[in-house]
Amino acid sequence: MMVDVLSYMNKYKLLIDDKLTELIQSIETTPKLKEAMMYSVKAGGKRLRPVLMLAVIESFGADPALGVIPGSALEMLHTYSLIHDDLPAMDNDDLRRGMPTSHKKFGEATAILAGDGLLTQAFECLVNAPGLTDSQKVELLHKLASAAGPEGMVGGQSDDLEAEEKTLKIEELEHIHLRKTGRLLEYAVEAGAIIANVNEDTRPYLMDYARHLGVAFQIKDDLLDIEGDEAVLGKPVGSDNEQGKNTYPSILGAEGAKEHLRRHFQMAISSLRKVNMGNDILEQLAHFIVERNH
Amino acid sequence: MMVDVLSYMNKYKLLIDDKLTELIQSIETTPKLKEAMMYSVKAGGKRLRPVLMLAVIESFGADPALGVIPGSALEMLHTYSLIHDDLPAMDNDDLRRGMPTSHKKFGEATAILAGDGLLTQAFECLVNAPGLTDSQKVELLHKLASAAGPEGMVGGQSDDLEAEEKTLKIEELEHIHLRKTGRLLEYAVEAGAIIANVNEDTRPYLMDYARHLGVAFQIKDDLLDIEGDEAVLGKPVGSDNEQGKNTYPSILGAEGAKEHLRRHFQMAISSLRKVNMGNDILEQLAHFIVERNH
Repeated sequence: MMVDVLSYMNKYKLLIDDKLTELIQSIETTPKLKEAMMYSVKAGGKRLRPVLMLAVIESFGADPALGVIPGSALEMLHTYSLIHDDLPAMDNDDLRRGMPTSHKKFGEATAILAGDGLLTQAFECLVNAPGLTDSQKVELLHKLASAAGPEGMVGGQSDDLEAEEKTLKIEELEHIHLRKTGRLLEYAVEAGAIIANVNEDTRPYLMDYARHLGVAFQIKDDLLDIEGDEAVLGKPVGSDNEQGKNTYPSILGAEGAKEHLRRHFQMAISSLRKVNMGNDILEQLAHFIVERNH
Repeated sequence: MMVDVLSYMNKYKLLIDDKLTELIQSIETTPKLKEAMMYSVKAGGKRLRPVLMLAVIESFGADPALGVIPGSALEMLHTYSLIHDDLPAMDNDDLRRGMPTSHKKFGEATAILAGDGLLTQAFECLVNAPGLTDSQKVELLHKLASAAGPEGMVGGQSDDLEAEEKTLKIEELEHIHLRKTGRLLEYAVEAGAIIANVNEDTRPYLMDYARHLGVAFQIKDDLLDIEGDEAVLGKPVGSDNEQGKNTYPSILGAEGAKEHLRRHFQMAISSLRKVNMGNDILEQLAHFIVERNH
């Protein structure tokens, strides 16, 4: 089955956008805190992680509707990580996707709390997601907490900050990004497999796909930072370099990074082709990720 | 059964201390992040919330060992809230329990991440707690996320920050504290009831006990800030007043606050006495909370 990947992604993005708005709107809390949570959640871009989750669910013949709340929960958690990463004590970014970052708009205290609130609410939404068994919820919650916590994303962010003054080897950079950005992408795919009850023999191929896709995603991000179009990206080009960050292009050069990207893309695809699915949407999503311009 | 409440508390405190150390020690992450998480967790005081949880479990004849990991998870979450509350953008505190706060010792970035890590790890530990059914875990995770999130603790903290410039009425202050400190104490009791399979008819009395105890706890905290002994408290006396915070004594006067404390204590006790239990430890814990000197 050949589908138009952009309209496929957009269909699911709109589902997630609507559900996120509804979930945040229904929270009873301080108006300022709610406004800050809504602001960052609405500033969201492609909803790549939830779209991946829904695509996995659909590829294995289950109902994608089952993934809308778990996918929204994942996007809340991703949004919290962006708010905290942007803080003055961390990356100190004023703009994200062309808009003022949370602390620029609401002040630092509210930005910290909006992040804390979104992280906690992500677990709250996931545990209340309809249509899942308790056993599925427990497995999802375990995988999400593990992917997001000190052994996953938070650990990667901490390592990334520690590494800012050093020049890394490629293995060290990859070790950081496998946790900082990789683990949540892997979770997106794994959660789809859990929700669709994909059998245990098949899952390792999906996880390999997700792992290589995560590396490819990060390399592409780094390449866009040096070669992208500011108007399309919504942030200044070259900011990684200015901040002295270690990136794939800074270590491998632009051509080396592109070669590295191709290799991980190929490994993602070949792992995927070992799995029997009714469509090729996961392959197309991989194409989108390495060919996107923002 | 009459027990010595201090040695009872100390026995369970030591269990929690040991399990917390073990749980943090086993995390594979950046050394600095792990050190910061361990530092704040080890600086912990009375472990009042987990002790309450274990006491509820024991009072209903279940095995307190079932509560050691859920109680440690609750203490991790409580510790995260202290680290983030102390940040310069929030309460800007340099000392906690006589020791430098996390951001003073490790820098702001690591303090933010240590908080994020402890919050996430709390869910990770809870979902992996042995001896509980999936259904119990789902209920515990739902109650914990709800108590800690924007409708609970994070919302209360946000309201508290908004209120700093205003003079509150007593109802407004109570509304803040029911969420900022109350909800986690209520969760401690409710979690004990879930773990011990306390029947649905009995739970509302326990929850009323917890709610009034939470208010009493906060009033006592405020009173200690004006009348306590610095050496015992580990922080300067009068700091609430200096920071222009709304407290029970600032609104009701010291004598009015004490009267309010007595009323909530009495309501906690009378609610508790409607429940059949094999011992009076929950009543004694209430006594301890309103009579403590730190």
